[in-house]
Amino acid sequence: MPAKKDAEQRKIVQEIDAKEKLEKLGRNLLSDINSEKNPKFITTTRSRSNISFDDKQGYLKLGSAQEERSFLNVAQSKRFMQTIAIASKCHQFVSQNLHTTIRGLFYQLKFSLGEDIDESIFDEQAESNPLIEDLEVSLGLKRENLNLNANRKGVLAGNFKVMDTFGKERMEIDASKMGRSGWQIPSDVDNDIEFVDVKAKYVLVVEKDALWQRLNEDKLWKKENSIIMTPQGQASRGTRRLIRKFADMGLPIYVFTDSDAWGWYIYWTIKTGSMNLAYIGKDIATPEARFIGVTMSDLDKYEFLNKLTIHASDVDLKRAQEMLNYSWIKRHKEWQEELKRMLSSKIKLEQDALQGPRLTFVDEYIVDKIKNKELMP
Amino acid sequence: MPAKKDAEQRKIVQEIDAKEKLEKLGRNLLSDINSEKNPKFITTTRSRSNISFDDKQGYLKLGSAQEERSFLNVAQSKRFMQTIAIASKCHQFVSQNLHTTIRGLFYQLKFSLGEDIDESIFDEQAESNPLIEDLEVSLGLKRENLNLNANRKGVLAGNFKVMDTFGKERMEIDASKMGRSGWQIPSDVDNDIEFVDVKAKYVLVVEKDALWQRLNEDKLWKKENSIIMTPQGQASRGTRRLIRKFADMGLPIYVFTDSDAWGWYIYWTIKTGSMNLAYIGKDIATPEARFIGVTMSDLDKYEFLNKLTIHASDVDLKRAQEMLNYSWIKRHKEWQEELKRMLSSKIKLEQDALQGPRLTFVDEYIVDKIKNKELMP
Repeated sequence: MPAKKDAEQRKIVQEIDAKEKLEKLGRNLLSDINSEKNPKFITTTRSRSNISFDDKQGYLKLGSAQEERSFLNVAQSKRFMQTIAIASKCHQFVSQNLHTTIRGLFYQLKFSLGEDIDESIFDEQAESNPLIEDLEVSLGLKRENLNLNANRKGVLAGNFKVMDTFGKERMEIDASKMGRSGWQIPSDVDNDIEFVDVKAKYVLVVEKDALWQRLNEDKLWKKENSIIMTPQGQASRGTRRLIRKFADMGLPIYVFTDSDAWGWYIYWTIKTGSMNLAYIGKDIATPEARFIGVTMSDLDKYEFLNKLTIHASDVDLKRAQEMLNYSWIKRHKEWQEELKRMLSSKIKLEQDALQGPRLTFVDEYIVDKIKNKELMP
Repeated sequence: MPAKKDAEQRKIVQEIDAKEKLEKLGRNLLSDINSEKNPKFITTTRSRSNISFDDKQGYLKLGSAQEERSFLNVAQSKRFMQTIAIASKCHQFVSQNLHTTIRGLFYQLKFSLGEDIDESIFDEQAESNPLIEDLEVSLGLKRENLNLNANRKGVLAGNFKVMDTFGKERMEIDASKMGRSGWQIPSDVDNDIEFVDVKAKYVLVVEKDALWQRLNEDKLWKKENSIIMTPQGQASRGTRRLIRKFADMGLPIYVFTDSDAWGWYIYWTIKTGSMNLAYIGKDIATPEARFIGVTMSDLDKYEFLNKLTIHASDVDLKRAQEMLNYSWIKRHKEWQEELKRMLSSKIKLEQDALQGPRLTFVDEYIVDKIKNKELMP
């Protein structure tokens, strides 16, 4: 489990101004040049060899291997210049208090490097993406702090308010008064956004938007004094970050997905982070998360579900086999049983199936599981 | 252009209660049985042969070919029974005032047909989907009226309010106070939902959510007294329906996409409807929509864009070739030129490229195009 210390550290990191960090990077490079040293900066290696599962903390993170990027190195010179160009553009975005995406950044770089350089040094976005990550890691902050929006996805409802400082306006959005739509989770849930009066008992994360709408219609969040959230499939960076933030506020996180490869992947990504984003693992993984269902063992408890199973696909079976060998899954007897049961029975179960007997049965299922602490690790 | 009459007809159709229509269907079947007639109902054929482009109205719609579904026909008996089971379930949802999806409906049907029948008559959802469409067409209403939610996608902001009667509560949502998130367009924008004080000058539909966020940050909708909307890619049923509704309120609709196969597809689907949904074409097509850009001819007007083009993919080229032959595109000289220009130059242009010179350039581009009426049909 991440200690309280982590939450504090996160807060401190956020409070350090991205602009200041970018300027410091610039000053250091200038000082290198002025003292006739080779300008360089340090970043942490993001290759698989430097990613490991932190047993104690419970998430995927980068190791300590570092890399130097220097200007006077033929192999690195172009990338070095590109990275500095990115830093310069981001400094501009942050100064202007305007946001864009990595695609918008790419076009700005392609348009001009500014100043007197008129040469296009970027042909493909594939070139700029890893350099943005270099910068995130090197500066110890996230692209969201550099005013680069990531794809957003995810919706929630609950008894609390969101204070959104949006441009020059401060808007109070009541997450209990968003009707059938819910509040759409933004790309950046750290900067200029506050969560006020969050007094829910727990957070329920529902894989599918359709089922979230069902539960929202029943006002489950009101009845249970909880927050219900859907990542609308695989969770975005913003949604994963928000789940982490709710956990830091002390709220239990319960994840509710299909019992199949995709559903399990969504759960484990929320819980342990992912290879791609191991470099911000601490900020977006929520090892405290618990799995509420649906489970293969629900077939024993709820007789009717046996009529509502569907065939597992080849992808499901292949993935279940792979998951059996992950170190973070191996340790959990319950998960080994789940996975083996799918592999032997070759069937899977969707969360939608809980609507079989009556539309509101899914509410009862959730309340019952939480009350009886029938949760998987 | 669809006449005003269409808008009125739509309103009347909406006001007729789905429950009443379902009950009438049931009563008619009962009466057939009681008078020892073969129970049957009529639906309009939805196969390609019965879909055509209505030249005068400007959208894809069903022709007049009808089909009979009857019980005492060995080839139709099972499907007949399945359709009635669907009608019965929908009647229940509407009576309970609860919503689900076609997936939730499938599981209810799989669980039990209710009464004494314990046999599962549905194995695959592929079986129930066309029967839902049969019912929609036969009853002259949309699945949204049967309390079946479709996938939702799409977000907007603007100076108006949404009155959402959600369960027993009436919630007023101010679409100008949704901050960076915007208001998420629901699956059903007809029932229990009202749009209040819509006084915008026009509606701008922006293909990409990322660019929508850019424009929302600049409060373009406020500066221009407009509504800005993004379908977040291909437009959902709900978003297409809402665009139609705004057009019925007399608002001009401007669509802003990439200049590539996918962007054009998004535009033409909003404008003329689609094959799949030709059976509700009148309710979701907006022939009045105009295309704002980006266009291949922007390359002549905005010199810098020539530096920011990217290679057209094989899919883009293949699709452009196909589109040249659509009757509804053939008539427009401007579109023929656009398509031919891509085919000969093999390049395409993304809306994101307008951020090249400065992040806010895209705002200027839009305002300028609308002011000067540089719009494509």
